[in-house]
Amino acid sequence: MALIVQKFGGTSVADPEKIKNVAKRVLQKQKKGNQMVVVLSAMSGETNRLTDFALQMQDFPDTREMDVLLSSGEQVTISLFAMAVKAMGDDCISFLGDQVKINTDNSHTKARIQSIDSEKIVAELNSGKIVVVAGFQGVDENGNVTTLGRGGSDTTAVALAAALKADACEIFTDVEGVYTTDPNICNTARKIDRISYDEMLELASLGAKVLDIRSVTFAKKYNVPIHVRSTFTETEGTWVVEEDKEMEGRIVSGVTYNRNEARITISGVPDQPGIAAKIFTPISDADIIVDMIIQNQDTGNGLTDMTFTVIRSDYQRTVQLLKAVIEKTGANGGIHGSDAITKISIVGVGMRNHSGIASTMFNVLSKEGINISMISTSEIKVSCIIEEKYTELAIRALHDAFELDKDNVPEEESLT
Amino acid sequence: MALIVQKFGGTSVADPEKIKNVAKRVLQKQKKGNQMVVVLSAMSGETNRLTDFALQMQDFPDTREMDVLLSSGEQVTISLFAMAVKAMGDDCISFLGDQVKINTDNSHTKARIQSIDSEKIVAELNSGKIVVVAGFQGVDENGNVTTLGRGGSDTTAVALAAALKADACEIFTDVEGVYTTDPNICNTARKIDRISYDEMLELASLGAKVLDIRSVTFAKKYNVPIHVRSTFTETEGTWVVEEDKEMEGRIVSGVTYNRNEARITISGVPDQPGIAAKIFTPISDADIIVDMIIQNQDTGNGLTDMTFTVIRSDYQRTVQLLKAVIEKTGANGGIHGSDAITKISIVGVGMRNHSGIASTMFNVLSKEGINISMISTSEIKVSCIIEEKYTELAIRALHDAFELDKDNVPEEESLT
Repeated sequence: MALIVQKFGGTSVADPEKIKNVAKRVLQKQKKGNQMVVVLSAMSGETNRLTDFALQMQDFPDTREMDVLLSSGEQVTISLFAMAVKAMGDDCISFLGDQVKINTDNSHTKARIQSIDSEKIVAELNSGKIVVVAGFQGVDENGNVTTLGRGGSDTTAVALAAALKADACEIFTDVEGVYTTDPNICNTARKIDRISYDEMLELASLGAKVLDIRSVTFAKKYNVPIHVRSTFTETEGTWVVEEDKEMEGRIVSGVTYNRNEARITISGVPDQPGIAAKIFTPISDADIIVDMIIQNQDTGNGLTDMTFTVIRSDYQRTVQLLKAVIEKTGANGGIHGSDAITKISIVGVGMRNHSGIASTMFNVLSKEGINISMISTSEIKVSCIIEEKYTELAIRALHDAFELDKDNVPEEESLT
Repeated sequence: MALIVQKFGGTSVADPEKIKNVAKRVLQKQKKGNQMVVVLSAMSGETNRLTDFALQMQDFPDTREMDVLLSSGEQVTISLFAMAVKAMGDDCISFLGDQVKINTDNSHTKARIQSIDSEKIVAELNSGKIVVVAGFQGVDENGNVTTLGRGGSDTTAVALAAALKADACEIFTDVEGVYTTDPNICNTARKIDRISYDEMLELASLGAKVLDIRSVTFAKKYNVPIHVRSTFTETEGTWVVEEDKEMEGRIVSGVTYNRNEARITISGVPDQPGIAAKIFTPISDADIIVDMIIQNQDTGNGLTDMTFTVIRSDYQRTVQLLKAVIEKTGANGGIHGSDAITKISIVGVGMRNHSGIASTMFNVLSKEGINISMISTSEIKVSCIIEEKYTELAIRALHDAFELDKDNVPEEESLT
């Protein structure tokens, strides 16, 4: 008998009929002899509806009250789900974040799970019930409702799977799994059967929206096998698991992109100790997140250029802020930038053992006449900032060059 | 400095704009130097929306899950209210039933409040905050969400006022207070300034929908002055308070009616000990609530008639059930009844000291040619079952006969 955690997102529970379908699906899995824990999001659209209400109240809604408001969404879906299961003749009980309980810190709207008291769940599972838990929500040490932020239901599911030592955590979504790249851009994109936590982390943080990054971190930490699959088909999806030999044989696993950044360059910055701090402290104080930072070598005149990227919606605000900052630093070359950029990345654990991957990427882009304005690398990825208009061209060229349309990894027995 | 509990129903918080208006109103009262605790219902229509969802899941939705579902409604209004207050520059904190906490028994969908742990509220009030509490909901000793049933938010408000020893509990509604009778039927109906708990209890249980009956019971038990008033005007409403001398001077306080009952007569019932139990035990086992019961004197043939009323929606079911029952009892006169009846009642604490009130009522009805099919009396009320078609006529005639259009009580200083 296996213990399976299944998570269904908002589109899978968008209305009563869809909730019934999810209940059927969970029951089928249970009938095969599994203990089932189900994690649900709010109905799709509900979070936006409630957020609209909140914005009519306050320009910047109080975060504690925002959590009280938003957590009502899953409360609706889990209770309806439990009813659906009972109507089908099986037994089911729902738990809210503070009933399970899912203990978090007190960072409202972006709380982090600290521990899970899974005693109640285990007792109900052992009595033969299906247990359905509200995703996305928790409770802090003072009994305040907290939420985990967008995508938080994935984290709830993985954290529960870890706490319960579940055999697998299945994340149901509206796509069939993790793809080598965006199938809407590249028609030879291929579903990946197995991918390592580290690769998934890079893909998630680089813009692939299939899995929330924190859930992957959790899964890696507690070695929870995640199965990302479609709510609407029975097809096997993508397993996110520990790295193995076969994965290393694959040099590049995927090509991903992020259009959500903007690039800013400050020219003629005096090349002195402490200059970076002078520039980035006020930016960080303004809660602006900086991603890539590149400082060019001083070319001999005691001046340097500093280039970095921020989230696109922070672009104008950052430029305004920097105007005041550069006066203090003595920078004289002005501020330049663009919010029409894309970050293109290739990801693969195989890069660790193969050289020349980055230069292959640069050559592919160069052949297509695409200029690279920034480069950043890690052990298992290479990212390049390019002009946004080349996004699709770059993706297709890289996908082709690294032969991602071909499955270079021998098939392995499936985990289910 | 007074401590005031204010409760606003679903129509008062039906949308973001209305919630803002409520927030303004509460702030005005606070600025006058009062500590404010606010109890809110769900947005009007929300309970029906959620109930519709539930009925799509299960013909008889599981009551534990129903409570999880329905309690999401107040969660939305209290958080939005707190945001509204904060946007107006004041401070506010929301509490759910399990945060306050409002401890109830485990009778899901109709739980009863057992105790209130008001420590958190007091602390927040003393720190200068407005406290907003979810009406209608509580928590049982195992941490399950419970709800108090329709009208439960009134009970929450009064129970909180009792626990906090509040100076007053203001129940805001869409009417201006408690009337001598239904103004839609009788255009001389007059708003009552002050009414006793006992009278209000009779009026509430007899069909007046202004206040939930349990809230009045609570208020009486803990001597909480209730002020029923309109959300949409500043007019003083009706104070529901302990009985006083002036109230006794008023013989009849109000005329009320209830169209929601049906009458059933079983004829030719053997007049033997235990016969009532034989008839009513199966009815009670079927969860059918019986209101009035009248058994006529045995007229000499060893047979009697038994007449009683049930809730109208239970009429057909009760008749079906009785067919099996009367065979066992040997009743031979058949079952007769009608679901086109109305219970008309007059209520007043003054009746205790005045005789002849009942006969005045009978005479008034008789003069209008209205036949009385059942009579029931208590210390402070007389109820008659009449044909439904005479409802309006009976109300107007009684209102007129007891001169309820005139305020027979000397004006007294208002409590605010």
